[in-house]
Amino acid sequence: MNQIPTDVCCLADYERHAQTILSEPTWAYLSGYSMDGFTHQRNRTKLDEVLVQQRILTESLGQGDCRQTLFGTELSMPLLIAPLAYQKLASSMGELGSVQAAAAQEVGFCLSTLASSTIEQVADVAPQSKRWFQLYCQPSLDDTLTLIRRAESSGYQAIVVTADAPINGVRNAEQRAGFELPDGVRAVNLDGLPQAAQGDSVFACWMGQAPDWQTLAWLREQTSLPILLKGVMHPADAKCAVELGIDGLIVSNHGGRVLDSQPATIEVLPAIRAAVGATLPVLLDSGIRRGSDIFKAIALGADAVLLGRPVFYAQAVAGPLGVAHCLRILRDELEATMALCGCATVQDINQDCLYTPF
Amino acid sequence: MNQIPTDVCCLADYERHAQTILSEPTWAYLSGYSMDGFTHQRNRTKLDEVLVQQRILTESLGQGDCRQTLFGTELSMPLLIAPLAYQKLASSMGELGSVQAAAAQEVGFCLSTLASSTIEQVADVAPQSKRWFQLYCQPSLDDTLTLIRRAESSGYQAIVVTADAPINGVRNAEQRAGFELPDGVRAVNLDGLPQAAQGDSVFACWMGQAPDWQTLAWLREQTSLPILLKGVMHPADAKCAVELGIDGLIVSNHGGRVLDSQPATIEVLPAIRAAVGATLPVLLDSGIRRGSDIFKAIALGADAVLLGRPVFYAQAVAGPLGVAHCLRILRDELEATMALCGCATVQDINQDCLYTPF
Amino acid sequence: MNQIPTDVCCLADYERHAQTILSEPTWAYLSGYSMDGFTHQRNRTKLDEVLVQQRILTESLGQGDCRQTLFGTELSMPLLIAPLAYQKLASSMGELGSVQAAAAQEVGFCLSTLASSTIEQVADVAPQSKRWFQLYCQPSLDDTLTLIRRAESSGYQAIVVTADAPINGVRNAEQRAGFELPDGVRAVNLDGLPQAAQGDSVFACWMGQAPDWQTLAWLREQTSLPILLKGVMHPADAKCAVELGIDGLIVSNHGGRVLDSQPATIEVLPAIRAAVGATLPVLLDSGIRRGSDIFKAIALGADAVLLGRPVFYAQAVAGPLGVAHCLRILRDELEATMALCGCATVQDINQDCLYTPF
Amino acid sequence: MNQIPTDVCCLADYERHAQTILSEPTWAYLSGYSMDGFTHQRNRTKLDEVLVQQRILTESLGQGDCRQTLFGTELSMPLLIAPLAYQKLASSMGELGSVQAAAAQEVGFCLSTLASSTIEQVADVAPQSKRWFQLYCQPSLDDTLTLIRRAESSGYQAIVVTADAPINGVRNAEQRAGFELPDGVRAVNLDGLPQAAQGDSVFACWMGQAPDWQTLAWLREQTSLPILLKGVMHPADAKCAVELGIDGLIVSNHGGRVLDSQPATIEVLPAIRAAVGATLPVLLDSGIRRGSDIFKAIALGADAVLLGRPVFYAQAVAGPLGVAHCLRILRDELEATMALCGCATVQDINQDCLYTPF
Repeated sequence: MNQIPTDVCCLADYERHAQTILSEPTWAYLSGYSMDGFTHQRNRTKLDEVLVQQRILTESLGQGDCRQTLFGTELSMPLLIAPLAYQKLASSMGELGSVQAAAAQEVGFCLSTLASSTIEQVADVAPQSKRWFQLYCQPSLDDTLTLIRRAESSGYQAIVVTADAPINGVRNAEQRAGFELPDGVRAVNLDGLPQAAQGDSVFACWMGQAPDWQTLAWLREQTSLPILLKGVMHPADAKCAVELGIDGLIVSNHGGRVLDSQPATIEVLPAIRAAVGATLPVLLDSGIRRGSDIFKAIALGADAVLLGRPVFYAQAVAGPLGVAHCLRILRDELEATMALCGCATVQDINQDCLYTPF
Repeated sequence: MNQIPTDVCCLADYERHAQTILSEPTWAYLSGYSMDGFTHQRNRTKLDEVLVQQRILTESLGQGDCRQTLFGTELSMPLLIAPLAYQKLASSMGELGSVQAAAAQEVGFCLSTLASSTIEQVADVAPQSKRWFQLYCQPSLDDTLTLIRRAESSGYQAIVVTADAPINGVRNAEQRAGFELPDGVRAVNLDGLPQAAQGDSVFACWMGQAPDWQTLAWLREQTSLPILLKGVMHPADAKCAVELGIDGLIVSNHGGRVLDSQPATIEVLPAIRAAVGATLPVLLDSGIRRGSDIFKAIALGADAVLLGRPVFYAQAVAGPLGVAHCLRILRDELEATMALCGCATVQDINQDCLYTPF
Repeated sequence: MNQIPTDVCCLADYERHAQTILSEPTWAYLSGYSMDGFTHQRNRTKLDEVLVQQRILTESLGQGDCRQTLFGTELSMPLLIAPLAYQKLASSMGELGSVQAAAAQEVGFCLSTLASSTIEQVADVAPQSKRWFQLYCQPSLDDTLTLIRRAESSGYQAIVVTADAPINGVRNAEQRAGFELPDGVRAVNLDGLPQAAQGDSVFACWMGQAPDWQTLAWLREQTSLPILLKGVMHPADAKCAVELGIDGLIVSNHGGRVLDSQPATIEVLPAIRAAVGATLPVLLDSGIRRGSDIFKAIALGADAVLLGRPVFYAQAVAGPLGVAHCLRILRDELEATMALCGCATVQDINQDCLYTPF
Repeated sequence: MNQIPTDVCCLADYERHAQTILSEPTWAYLSGYSMDGFTHQRNRTKLDEVLVQQRILTESLGQGDCRQTLFGTELSMPLLIAPLAYQKLASSMGELGSVQAAAAQEVGFCLSTLASSTIEQVADVAPQSKRWFQLYCQPSLDDTLTLIRRAESSGYQAIVVTADAPINGVRNAEQRAGFELPDGVRAVNLDGLPQAAQGDSVFACWMGQAPDWQTLAWLREQTSLPILLKGVMHPADAKCAVELGIDGLIVSNHGGRVLDSQPATIEVLPAIRAAVGATLPVLLDSGIRRGSDIFKAIALGADAVLLGRPVFYAQAVAGPLGVAHCLRILRDELEATMALCGCATVQDINQDCLYTPF
């Protein structure tokens, strides 16, 4: 498992291998999506439809690089590992492996509230990592605050509040496969914390405990860390967040796992960038599989992207080494795309670098 | 047959199972469509192309629900079982099973003139059901009137006049499979009533006996029950119906079973809503397979939808329990879609809940 | 071969059966198309994209029919059998079978210059047939005139001059299969007439002998029969023909057999109708497979259509009886479409009978 | 290998056969593309979407031909063999075979810097060939100049500077197959010349040695031969080249082998033609597979096209004879398309020869 297969050259290769390695229920969980997967698929097709504009004979590309700075921290490229739950489903090292890969490749790492490793373990194993903490608000404000304090104490540099998944999506593939968390994989950071009562009404049961704008306003007062809001898909919601003093946005449809029939994230990105102005950090996830996808997201207004399922797949296939390899592939692809489009730095990437009919 | 298979999580799962259970000719009849199925397929693809708009952190969703009131009757969600002919083709209980499922789930039930159970049997077996009667005009006005009177006497609350199927569609799959009604399955409500002579000319034979606007005007005078016109696909026809005092419309292309190469119902819905104003009840059928489809239809102007073939499939797979399960799945999916789009009630669903490029 | 298989319900069924009956080279010849078949396929997809508009409760449809009059001759529907070469490839009766089927079904029949039966035989076997003669101009004007005189003498009622096939198309499937005319199948009407020298240059060899506008002007003076020009795809060519006194046009791309990458005939029909005004007879072929296709062509400006390959397929499967069945299927489909769109006669069919977004 | 299979009628047939003949790694190399092949595929689909306009009865086509003159040299059709690297991968004769085929068919031949035959060998074996030399700038200007001088001495009539491949594309299929040049196939014209250091950073390593606009300006001063710039995809780059005195452009995306997610060449051609005016020679490659493709490119502003991969495939299947056959097929297809669209000469082909909705 710690060998990278010789025929792995791109992220799709890891996906292909992972499907043969993982158990069928785990595969159904990891690869699954809401309902019929229209949004899951659209995330890709809309990225594929964005065309880049080759330029030739550009001068001074020899000094180029793809480094990017977010909230004062410089990354080797504009990418973080997304806050994936239960990474031990992919391999025994789980988050401890992927954070080390992120640190080695100098990209960001965002730990999920539903991680299968603790906030502290992740910090200890990769103290130099550039790490953020993703927060699911807990039924009790005190418990929510405790999670924030633990993240602060362990050197996490930002809080990512997920707002797009107050309920689980309708995940038929996962249901059909009868997926359950295996022994030894659980949300360890929530050990001892009471969880929402599960009931059979979406509204009465789940939504009664979901965070709302007031919760976010309260959160903003609890920490001096930057707070990013994840799951923004409407410009009006983006503006609301800005008014509450939120420091950054993540345009995300949760990889198509929650609400099907939504647009792709790349589609809504330009309007969200327009709504919040040029300077607020805006990130994007859901569907990134190539360095050229990163290029496209940057060109359309993002400051960086998050990488989700491919981290799982690479971890399942080749452990932390696989994750690092995966990150390196993306960087090479991004640099090649930049060089061929005449961009020496991430700041050079803009809408003019995309092809639109002349 | 009364066991729900463990891998059934959505309506498509019932369809898949049903195909393995039903005889080939029955399957050809139930699943069939007119000519090449362009309209049958378009009903789905046009629903799939409608995109919903996620909203986050909406307040007060905990008190939400998806109840809807039609003609003074409250339903648990905006849905009725469509007037399907010969439901005993699916299972021995036929309409008696599906009306009980509808009553248990508090949705509406529309009995077909071509039902394989009588008007009275259906009322008796589910006296609390919210039931409508679908009328095919008979060659004799007296016979037509007799059907209406029986429906009135048995507590049916509305009459649905079907106008889009004066002739059978060109159903090649059914013809190829040599489908015929098996013994014991027939249109029992028409026992003893003379039927139209069958001949070989579409015009002379079939259309000479088809109802027209005068028939509808006459019908309007025969009953104080609300009358809905089913099969409306053109705004001008919708306006005609309103002028004659019709109480509601059902936008339908008969599930693509009659006239191929028509547009999808979801395409024509907005223009029909616009033609009749905001208050007239407008329903839609043909292609509903997900709770999110109901959401889309409501957003584009419908008050409720009707569910057709999936009722057959669920009945074939797991009898009345299957039908009830099917209805519950749709409600859960509708509630999840509403909650994630920030809608606490059906009245909150409107065009702004759909995504259009900003 | 004279039995219609029980599972044949539409023209596609004949095609399916024919493929299993005909030799591979003959199939390659009959079903083949130019180059990559883009135009062949586009003929269908563009017809499929035209949507019809259902209307309900229309009055007085009982007296409807689909009869159509062309050049003073009434047909049971607006359709002729297209001038197909070498029909004995399909069955031993060839043109003698299909003209009888056309006569029995009261549709038109157009005999090809490249028919495998003589002008006179066809007239003799079906004296009541409504027959036209399709003319390929011969290298010698005298020979051309002889063909016209034979057609006149045998009661053919119009001359169809084919202009879109001065050269054979690039038919790779036919070339790969090594198709050659079998013994006993040849262009008998050309027996004894010198044919164009075959050479290896498209321009010098083929085009030097091709007819041009002067040839057409000359032809117009040679006969009092109506002359139709077949293969018109550009409004300017349509206007030229009208100026020369041509009596009717056939919009055709030869079923996609000659020039690939052309538009579909149904696409160019409205502009050609607009160019020549409302009264000149305009026909269309290439891709007609359903009665609803005829409806669409009429709605977009045609007076009638021609049916090509399906005649071969039906003849191969079930001889003349198959051809007659094929024609009857189309009429039933056309009548059903008309009735469901509220049209009592062919004259009622117009652009308003098509769906365009309201 | 020197026999043309009897079922080869078009270039796609050669491709099909070649795949069965070549080793898997060589096939992966020859047929491969950058990343996911979107641009590779788009080159074809965008050509396929261009529609031609049939015209009928055009006069004086008997004197037509498809000859074209470029930089004073007349070709039998507007086509050159593209500068393909390592043609000995396809067959032992490599470039020596394809240049002979080009000479025999009177089309142009462009020799690659990365040819597996020397500049001098190619000239010797086909002294009458109309040959150009494609230049990859070498790390040393002196070495670059040496290549130019060798080409001049050997009668090459133009220099083609490739600007779109300063780095190799991300070619996953080739990587997965583990392709390496076999013994005896190498870039013989670079024997003894130092090559760029290979490193692991796109920017520092590759781009530091890439040519830029200054290099091009320098090149322009070194030779009196016409210089064409290959790989132009942006009108602004086209204008830059014109300002530097470049004599011609080749619109190319390297067959989709370098930068994926680019538009097709046929898409950008009209804007590039518009940017440089009517008289500068503009050529196009990437995706040409039919004579009708050449017609489309000419109609949209090209003076000629280059043919790439099919030359490899034909050579692999049937050696030089296959290449000649391939060229002849294209000419026949081009002539047929011209004749059927009413064009007697290449100069008659323009935008009016394409179909756009009237």
